Amino acid sequence: MSGLFPMSDRVRGLDARLAEFMDAQVLPAEAALAAWDEDPARRWTIPPLLEELKQRARDAGLWNLFLPGSGHGLSNLEYARLAERMGRSLIASEVFICSAPDTGNMEVLHQFATAEQQERWLAPLLAGEIRSAFAMTEPEVASSDATNIGLPIRREGGDFVLDGRKWWTTGAGDPRCRVLIVMGVTEPEAPAHKRQSMVLVPMDTPGIEVVRPLRVFGYDDAPHGHVELKFTGVRVPQANLLHTAGSGFEIAQARLGPGRIHHCMRLIGLAQRALEAMVLRAKTRVAFGVPLGQLGMAQEAIALSRCEIEQARLLTLQAADALDREGSKGARDLIGMIKIVAPRMACAVLDRAIQIHGAGGLSQDHFLAAAYAGARSLRLADGPDEVHMASLARGMLKG
Amino acid sequence: MSGLFPMSDRVRGLDARLAEFMDAQVLPAEAALAAWDEDPARRWTIPPLLEELKQRARDAGLWNLFLPGSGHGLSNLEYARLAERMGRSLIASEVFICSAPDTGNMEVLHQFATAEQQERWLAPLLAGEIRSAFAMTEPEVASSDATNIGLPIRREGGDFVLDGRKWWTTGAGDPRCRVLIVMGVTEPEAPAHKRQSMVLVPMDTPGIEVVRPLRVFGYDDAPHGHVELKFTGVRVPQANLLHTAGSGFEIAQARLGPGRIHHCMRLIGLAQRALEAMVLRAKTRVAFGVPLGQLGMAQEAIALSRCEIEQARLLTLQAADALDREGSKGARDLIGMIKIVAPRMACAVLDRAIQIHGAGGLSQDHFLAAAYAGARSLRLADGPDEVHMASLARGMLKG
Amino acid sequence: MSGLFPMSDRVRGLDARLAEFMDAQVLPAEAALAAWDEDPARRWTIPPLLEELKQRARDAGLWNLFLPGSGHGLSNLEYARLAERMGRSLIASEVFICSAPDTGNMEVLHQFATAEQQERWLAPLLAGEIRSAFAMTEPEVASSDATNIGLPIRREGGDFVLDGRKWWTTGAGDPRCRVLIVMGVTEPEAPAHKRQSMVLVPMDTPGIEVVRPLRVFGYDDAPHGHVELKFTGVRVPQANLLHTAGSGFEIAQARLGPGRIHHCMRLIGLAQRALEAMVLRAKTRVAFGVPLGQLGMAQEAIALSRCEIEQARLLTLQAADALDREGSKGARDLIGMIKIVAPRMACAVLDRAIQIHGAGGLSQDHFLAAAYAGARSLRLADGPDEVHMASLARGMLKG
Amino acid sequence: MSGLFPMSDRVRGLDARLAEFMDAQVLPAEAALAAWDEDPARRWTIPPLLEELKQRARDAGLWNLFLPGSGHGLSNLEYARLAERMGRSLIASEVFICSAPDTGNMEVLHQFATAEQQERWLAPLLAGEIRSAFAMTEPEVASSDATNIGLPIRREGGDFVLDGRKWWTTGAGDPRCRVLIVMGVTEPEAPAHKRQSMVLVPMDTPGIEVVRPLRVFGYDDAPHGHVELKFTGVRVPQANLLHTAGSGFEIAQARLGPGRIHHCMRLIGLAQRALEAMVLRAKTRVAFGVPLGQLGMAQEAIALSRCEIEQARLLTLQAADALDREGSKGARDLIGMIKIVAPRMACAVLDRAIQIHGAGGLSQDHFLAAAYAGARSLRLADGPDEVHMASLARGMLKG
Repeated sequence: MSGLFPMSDRVRGLDARLAEFMDAQVLPAEAALAAWDEDPARRWTIPPLLEELKQRARDAGLWNLFLPGSGHGLSNLEYARLAERMGRSLIASEVFICSAPDTGNMEVLHQFATAEQQERWLAPLLAGEIRSAFAMTEPEVASSDATNIGLPIRREGGDFVLDGRKWWTTGAGDPRCRVLIVMGVTEPEAPAHKRQSMVLVPMDTPGIEVVRPLRVFGYDDAPHGHVELKFTGVRVPQANLLHTAGSGFEIAQARLGPGRIHHCMRLIGLAQRALEAMVLRAKTRVAFGVPLGQLGMAQEAIALSRCEIEQARLLTLQAADALDREGSKGARDLIGMIKIVAPRMACAVLDRAIQIHGAGGLSQDHFLAAAYAGARSLRLADGPDEVHMASLARGMLKG
Repeated sequence: MSGLFPMSDRVRGLDARLAEFMDAQVLPAEAALAAWDEDPARRWTIPPLLEELKQRARDAGLWNLFLPGSGHGLSNLEYARLAERMGRSLIASEVFICSAPDTGNMEVLHQFATAEQQERWLAPLLAGEIRSAFAMTEPEVASSDATNIGLPIRREGGDFVLDGRKWWTTGAGDPRCRVLIVMGVTEPEAPAHKRQSMVLVPMDTPGIEVVRPLRVFGYDDAPHGHVELKFTGVRVPQANLLHTAGSGFEIAQARLGPGRIHHCMRLIGLAQRALEAMVLRAKTRVAFGVPLGQLGMAQEAIALSRCEIEQARLLTLQAADALDREGSKGARDLIGMIKIVAPRMACAVLDRAIQIHGAGGLSQDHFLAAAYAGARSLRLADGPDEVHMASLARGMLKG
Repeated sequence: MSGLFPMSDRVRGLDARLAEFMDAQVLPAEAALAAWDEDPARRWTIPPLLEELKQRARDAGLWNLFLPGSGHGLSNLEYARLAERMGRSLIASEVFICSAPDTGNMEVLHQFATAEQQERWLAPLLAGEIRSAFAMTEPEVASSDATNIGLPIRREGGDFVLDGRKWWTTGAGDPRCRVLIVMGVTEPEAPAHKRQSMVLVPMDTPGIEVVRPLRVFGYDDAPHGHVELKFTGVRVPQANLLHTAGSGFEIAQARLGPGRIHHCMRLIGLAQRALEAMVLRAKTRVAFGVPLGQLGMAQEAIALSRCEIEQARLLTLQAADALDREGSKGARDLIGMIKIVAPRMACAVLDRAIQIHGAGGLSQDHFLAAAYAGARSLRLADGPDEVHMASLARGMLKG
Repeated sequence: MSGLFPMSDRVRGLDARLAEFMDAQVLPAEAALAAWDEDPARRWTIPPLLEELKQRARDAGLWNLFLPGSGHGLSNLEYARLAERMGRSLIASEVFICSAPDTGNMEVLHQFATAEQQERWLAPLLAGEIRSAFAMTEPEVASSDATNIGLPIRREGGDFVLDGRKWWTTGAGDPRCRVLIVMGVTEPEAPAHKRQSMVLVPMDTPGIEVVRPLRVFGYDDAPHGHVELKFTGVRVPQANLLHTAGSGFEIAQARLGPGRIHHCMRLIGLAQRALEAMVLRAKTRVAFGVPLGQLGMAQEAIALSRCEIEQARLLTLQAADALDREGSKGARDLIGMIKIVAPRMACAVLDRAIQIHGAGGLSQDHFLAAAYAGARSLRLADGPDEVHMASLARGMLKG
């Protein structure tokens, strides 16, 4: 594949080092980290092994790969390769300080925050010392239509006062989470796309309640979690405004493009690992006297998966390249396309891999079922497929 | 639909009473029973509300509907209707003492057990006083090929001695589980289909260890669970043999036909409820200024789901009728067909329902994701789709 | 299957006689009738063998099976079985005087025509002496929305005068076609569903021009054809009005219910024959040293086809039964469902059968490609899938 | 897309000239060329307009673009872009002397023929003065397994004598076809892959009979056609051997790689045009009061088609690049993948385009149905999907 989307020597080198670290450190730790969760008493605490792995990754210089200003200075196309590599393990992106929602939040802080805001929040995030969350989606409305976001943020004295509910706030259950970026309505009289602002809210501000963790197919993804939050008279200085009043929609848009590419490349890495697991299983598992791999239906599952993965990979690389060259607007259609394609592809491949693994494939003995839950949720997160399909088609119909 | 598979007045009456009980007692209890699980301390204990509901169902005469000898005396076709009704809630079949694996085990005991064995185990099972499990699948082999089942059962003195491992033993994590039906090899020298026997093993026999619960996606289905079991020198009298030595395969076959129909009809009830939820959501949820139900993609999801559910329902009723009229052999193809069709249909419908519900559809706020996990596992339990497709085709190619 | 939709002895007898006649007379004639078309000189003439077969079918009493008033007096459910039988061959329904569009036209004449109109047109149609066509669809508008039908029919003196175009007028290319039922606008000022009337137009009326045959995937279906018609000052007496002025929409609706069931049952017969051909091919064709039937992908194709055919058959029988019991309105949803399901199912099964037959499956050496073209056109004829899905969903959303 | 597979200036220039020629000359001629066929008397003759277009293309220097030795000297990756452009019209590749089977035959002659053979056949083929055909597939055997090819070629005196049948010999019905490349068995005692040779057989050699044209769906693709051939004592000098005795399999393999990429890129051009037609139709066609493009199901069809086309395009470009860089062996998997992906994608997109065009989409009024027939045949030509999936999977299972 090297010919078409050639990796620079630098990226090739980073990828090789990532691969080596993954094999030597991350994959062997998966079982222990999964076992940590088995004890309910420590479910919402951080396993020390994870912090160790982060430190080792940092020591190895595999750190903050995603961010323009971080020293690596990778393009989206370059980073896409590394995101695929990290995506092979559900725990890897955190180890390399490249995990959602922090990456998106850091990009937002990098692009829109004041120097003071950056010093307080971006620096420790980049250092992996704290985590953050992004509180946008609300339980009562179709949040894929961002103009529905309605949490009121009143101005009172020099403060903002927040009241209301958010949910699916990923990472806000994490004991290391220190700050929320909250989207809410500060300008109720403005036109629909100018009503909302984003505000930085320290997690320890009085009036914030973590109502409950939400589960995805039974997984609570502790210790980070996806939580429902209640804000009751939560008060922060107006200096905590991000960018300008009424720019919430604009910031959200800017955050989504690269974020979607990261998600999609991680899904491709995950699907690729599932394919490799499928092949291994098909070689070694015998039923009715023959290895599964000699059976036509298993061969079909393997062949189709390879075709689908490779196509989705190329499309995502193309979207990353377009984003680098033409910016968010120029890459809009391609980003919409990978958002439609990659999660469905990953679900299809993972489902076939589960089937080839038998009942064990549904259980904690393999990464497949948990990966499926994550991939499936990405057909809804950041806008359901249907919204992206409608939007893509409408663009073409106008053209 | 009444014209084609007409319900007798008696079945219609039972169905109406079930429906009323479901609406009045079962559905309102779902949330409380789900909440029981939230507290890790009581996860593997039985919620008293469940026992109350069972008692009320018993008082209402809605009890043991499935079994020929239970007083109701329903045919498979008649029972299929009631299983659909019960299938609408994941907790209902237990309330009505109609839940797997007890139903299948009771049928086995009814058909193959001695009077003494029946008195000891069948009577309290019918009364809902104890539960049971069926230990067949083994971790190391493709158990869809039953000749692979290899747990050794030695004869020693007048006893059987069991050593080895089983997994996916549904219900063996339940504190009320008192007995296992274990399939293992008693006649290692016999032809492949005559090697295994089934043996009754009281749950409190020394040497049985519940190694761990297996999860399906993230669900452990506590308090019943699907567990891995280890047998170390587990000793039971030879009088605990079910039927004859070497008849394990024969008993397993007899158990599967009705069992599959029950599973399929429950899936149809579940899919039907998902469709109703989808319609309700599409009526009430507004995105981009219009109710979802006015959007073409939602209409397509609803229309296709209805078409698929109705077809699967008819096919399953037909299989039930064939089993009543022609027995297991005559109904073999149809039972294979519903085993292929119903779980896939349910997965497709539930997946669409999740999509229409948005991210909430993946969470504990709706029954959809848990139902999906159950439906998905039925594409593997009792033999993966691929085995059933191959077997169906081979029968036709021979014919 | 017998248990669920029991055939009466009379239907069973008719079916057996049909089956025997099909095997002895119809299937052996397929090749000769196909060859007739090879000579371009006689493409649009009637092969004498066809007329002979019709006479033999009439002599055998297998004649006009579809019509309530024809002496057989079959219900839709009963006729559905026979339509499936006839559907196995693309030429059979004409042999038995049961082919579209004549059947629908005869039903319209039977239900809505005056005695005089019936004597002139219905009697010779029932006798198989003439043929007819139904001119509804127009080239410039989406005719699935019947209110778009716009061909003006002016009153002038005691006459109607027709000007305009129709297309996809099946059978109007047939030299035996003597009469058109034309739908057009007689009451332009009435509400949308009351504007159109149906008028009987003898084929030899001056001003009717057969512009050209339309082809479906290259097939012109000569000698009947699907033609484009031009009406220039075509004048018929007002006595040629069918039923009442403004009742065109009502008549069209009444025509569609049974027509769709006939189409669907014929598709099921066609798919069933394709499955049988697939099985035969898989048994006998050897590739890479093994019969195709031993290969998993062929087994999957066979197994899924059987499951899909059986489900569609049951659904169509159920719709037929509902039409008998509850009339068009009561059966509306089910008729919509089979219209969505049966053509897609037939396309899927035929496509798999083509694949198993190799390139020959696409050619005139097998019935499969021609059958595919016919099945595919039924995803558009009588309203495209999308209209039926939207309509089915909207009904449920209202309910 | 430009960033990822950058076109050189030269290719960009050729593509622009092709595009201009297509718009100005080819697309406007489609209707007239289609009409030529309507008159049965001239079906198997060459429309003069076609020869004129060829001359104009030659005058414009748009000629023999595919062949390394033709002066353009394009790589497979470069040519792939131009093949996509030409693929938009079913008549274009012939206009530009880039149509199958001549391209493959010219490549074979270029690579394997003697100087004398090249002078006699390659020169006039490159000049567009004659056409050729490739007679490999046989009616009685699964020709996807090339070792099944069995037409006997005896040595007698200094001659080869051929007896037997071939079918699906594309182009052999064309009056301009002057030569066949025939694959048959010259070394019956050799190992399976060394038995066959390829022999040049002038079309006017006594003993060659064009038995009949084969149709794909209802299309005979006159005047080139796909014919069945009978060889009765057909005698050619042994000097007509291509390459070496027993090298038939080797030549066939060498012919397939570039051939498949050409086919796939043409399919992508065809699908792209179908998508554009779909968008245009959706903008302009009104049903039930709104343009189709406002309906969700049409939007879904458009969006999915775009995603699928773009992915297949990228995969095919990647295969072309791999072929350039790594040769047939290195590109084997990717070529297998596009052979699986592109025809299915094209069928899916064309099917959706037909659906959006209504019944007219099935007819001669649009290119869609004919394009579908061609795309569908490519799921069987050069090996059915199933063979390619099995082969791809087996390669991975070995690796």
